[in-house]
Amino acid sequence: MTTTDALTVRRNELVRGLLDILPADAVLHLAEALRPYECDGLSAYRRLPMAVALPSSVEQVRAIMRLCHRLRIPVVPRGAGTGLSGGALPLSDGLLLSLAKLKSILNLDPVARTARVQPGVRNLAISQAALPHGLYYAPDPSSQIACSIGGNVAENSGGVHCLKYGLTVHNLLRLEVVTAEGELLSLGSDAPDAPGYDLMALMTGSEGLLGIVVEATVRLLPLPERAQVLLAAFDDVARAAAAVGEIIAAGIIPAGLEMMDKLAIQAAEAFVHAGYPVAAEAILLCELDGTNDEVSEHVMQVRQLLLRCGATEVRTARDEAERQRFWAGRKSAFPAVGRLSPDYYCMDGTIPRRRLPEVLTRIRELSVEYGLAVANVFHAGDGNLHPLILYDANRPGELERTEQFGARILQACVDAGGTITGEHGVGMEKIDAMCGQFAAPELAQFHAVKAAFDPDGLLNPGKAVPTLHRCAEFGAMHVHHNELKFPDLPRF
Amino acid sequence: MTTTDALTVRRNELVRGLLDILPADAVLHLAEALRPYECDGLSAYRRLPMAVALPSSVEQVRAIMRLCHRLRIPVVPRGAGTGLSGGALPLSDGLLLSLAKLKSILNLDPVARTARVQPGVRNLAISQAALPHGLYYAPDPSSQIACSIGGNVAENSGGVHCLKYGLTVHNLLRLEVVTAEGELLSLGSDAPDAPGYDLMALMTGSEGLLGIVVEATVRLLPLPERAQVLLAAFDDVARAAAAVGEIIAAGIIPAGLEMMDKLAIQAAEAFVHAGYPVAAEAILLCELDGTNDEVSEHVMQVRQLLLRCGATEVRTARDEAERQRFWAGRKSAFPAVGRLSPDYYCMDGTIPRRRLPEVLTRIRELSVEYGLAVANVFHAGDGNLHPLILYDANRPGELERTEQFGARILQACVDAGGTITGEHGVGMEKIDAMCGQFAAPELAQFHAVKAAFDPDGLLNPGKAVPTLHRCAEFGAMHVHHNELKFPDLPRF
Repeated sequence: MTTTDALTVRRNELVRGLLDILPADAVLHLAEALRPYECDGLSAYRRLPMAVALPSSVEQVRAIMRLCHRLRIPVVPRGAGTGLSGGALPLSDGLLLSLAKLKSILNLDPVARTARVQPGVRNLAISQAALPHGLYYAPDPSSQIACSIGGNVAENSGGVHCLKYGLTVHNLLRLEVVTAEGELLSLGSDAPDAPGYDLMALMTGSEGLLGIVVEATVRLLPLPERAQVLLAAFDDVARAAAAVGEIIAAGIIPAGLEMMDKLAIQAAEAFVHAGYPVAAEAILLCELDGTNDEVSEHVMQVRQLLLRCGATEVRTARDEAERQRFWAGRKSAFPAVGRLSPDYYCMDGTIPRRRLPEVLTRIRELSVEYGLAVANVFHAGDGNLHPLILYDANRPGELERTEQFGARILQACVDAGGTITGEHGVGMEKIDAMCGQFAAPELAQFHAVKAAFDPDGLLNPGKAVPTLHRCAEFGAMHVHHNELKFPDLPRF
Repeated sequence: MTTTDALTVRRNELVRGLLDILPADAVLHLAEALRPYECDGLSAYRRLPMAVALPSSVEQVRAIMRLCHRLRIPVVPRGAGTGLSGGALPLSDGLLLSLAKLKSILNLDPVARTARVQPGVRNLAISQAALPHGLYYAPDPSSQIACSIGGNVAENSGGVHCLKYGLTVHNLLRLEVVTAEGELLSLGSDAPDAPGYDLMALMTGSEGLLGIVVEATVRLLPLPERAQVLLAAFDDVARAAAAVGEIIAAGIIPAGLEMMDKLAIQAAEAFVHAGYPVAAEAILLCELDGTNDEVSEHVMQVRQLLLRCGATEVRTARDEAERQRFWAGRKSAFPAVGRLSPDYYCMDGTIPRRRLPEVLTRIRELSVEYGLAVANVFHAGDGNLHPLILYDANRPGELERTEQFGARILQACVDAGGTITGEHGVGMEKIDAMCGQFAAPELAQFHAVKAAFDPDGLLNPGKAVPTLHRCAEFGAMHVHHNELKFPDLPRF
């Protein structure tokens, strides 16, 4: 029997089993039906799964996991597919498990200030449902219109407000999780701290390798009485970066503190007409929220501070419409940059805040070295960089050069005491970079923890945590991308 | 060979091995030298270890763990020994590993706002070292003068300020941990989020069962421009409890929101002369911090709100000295209550905040039923209760009645959607109560995670997480204490 034949036999077995659990329209297995699931937001990597399952109840998820466990078929869970590191890239011998149909808000308690939601509920939908009660859900990734809470948990997503309000893990109370064997675990509690090991925190950010999130209880926060945003223009990137440190040092925690460089400013301005100063080398967007008096006081302080740090112009949004416009520019920056170039590669690294000026300088030097333009759009307050490398995949060798450039940026982040990913996850994209981030004892411990949840290695295998063998082969190259690493993967 | 002989042989083997690693004065094995280590803050349970090791370097800790792993000798780690759930109770066939000599502040970076400290550094010592830089370490358990950061990590300690500033886990950046096999793991990162599974969060609150914390990097916060405390008196406990919910509902997050009932008020007043209104049925202490304007605004709002909720008197501390006095009463409440009675049993349960009034009423009913007085002192804002049951261990049966009463209180917490422990840990004390808190799948997962770190079960065995067998034997009794549970333990 050839490999293809063997795969067909397994596929048939899987599909038959799925049809015992799900209605026919919730089991996809023909190539054209599978096509929409071939990649997530990291579209450079594409692969068709054996089948796609679309359960609409927790019991169905459990039955599917039991089936796959019995058949020893790997499972890749998928939320909205907006992830940027290939975490939901299918396996050609695996099932793609979409949680998109589990999309109910089960309960919203305005007194306890919690929402109990299914994993397919969109991030923004939670805040929309909470709005009549004067509440909202704080973590707000740029993809919040589309991304779902299950994916947010899997990636421990942040957003422009995580500087003040924390990452997904800080805004979670409980998770219901289906294990690789179909068991249902209830993790966390409605009280501030739960006894036992903190498996809820462990599950958060585990990129679908430890379990399938089938329900989340999230914290809601009262909408601040007032939110005000300042826009400061600088004629020098390093000066803008230095201002970030000064604001934090003054003891002010902005609700958001974002930076964009010239290329990003111009792209966003051309795209959404946010009213940005297009001649500036960099802008800072600083949102302050709280009570009326508090915001007035902080706006005054931050304005003076920005001017002292060399801002050539500081504007305060005159009204809510202008505030929304300022943010629209920032939130649309990725697609806006996408209009400048056939392709772009979005990086995600973190550094200690005080190292911002030097790392930005380093990125500029590398941009010259590789002959590729870079737009910088990032969560400056968190030290979470998002350099966007512009390239054209149709030019021979340009993708490879882009990846090398990206690896050098990540190396610069690690050298500065940072990490290879802030909020986009490791997924497929950065798995080799993990060899440079961690030493063997930590990687061994990661695998031991993985085995404690999924001894057969059926949950999203090959993502997020490299095997020690892989790292040994990867050798001393550290965070350099290895061009031979996915030889079986077609590139767009 | 009798059991005692076998133990002597093992002890000799252990001591010989320890003396190869440590100087003679860092290895204790004579009964009188072991005596100070026979219990932690839960003095009802006492036991002498085989030996005590007092390493003063990370390398020594690693060598000790390798030795114990080779000899298959269990290890109980101990910080300052202030824990209230018996987590540091020795094993008669085990080593007691004291981290007390690892007590250096390795680095304090006022720009990055972090402190890198050894586990034996006292909680308060970090804030004292940070003070010249206008910074402090937020988590502040009542025992902060004595308790050490290693123990804080092991228990995920809170304190009066955790409502606003979070638990220990929210104020940590990195941990260095020695595993059961003597491996050194570096967990977390200086950046806001680290890739890989969040083993730092998993380690925090794991009560010494997963590894030995040998270094912690903690966040420091800028001292608020101003902190003001309000003291409100109530002639009814339920009304005070209701006011707690109202303050939070108004969108104000106090830096601390504590409640004491009549017995606790009177005890504290007699002990430290805090200036409390001794005729009140309950008082609330509400601390507000932030900028000058912000605090002024919040003080006004909270004062009005408290009066509207039926406070008979609302006082604002006139100066820093009075503010310190108000807090001194709260922080000394445990020893103060201890003066009223030969013994007291400090409970620690959590409930959703809105259930406070009914659970307090239930505790009062139970107090009458068991004929035992209760003083309530607790973190009201977090819904973290600390009922102190007054009893006399010399009266036959009174300890047993106290434990039954305590179990009923925990049952009431679980019934109200809460947990059996807020911040004092499970340790030895609440191990059976865990059977009522978790179902078999969660407990099985806890054990799998434990095995991923400590396959031989050498780290603090028998604490924190009950075996499924134990829970099966414990049966449907749920959170009732089982009087036969530690038949080998002498009681004081």
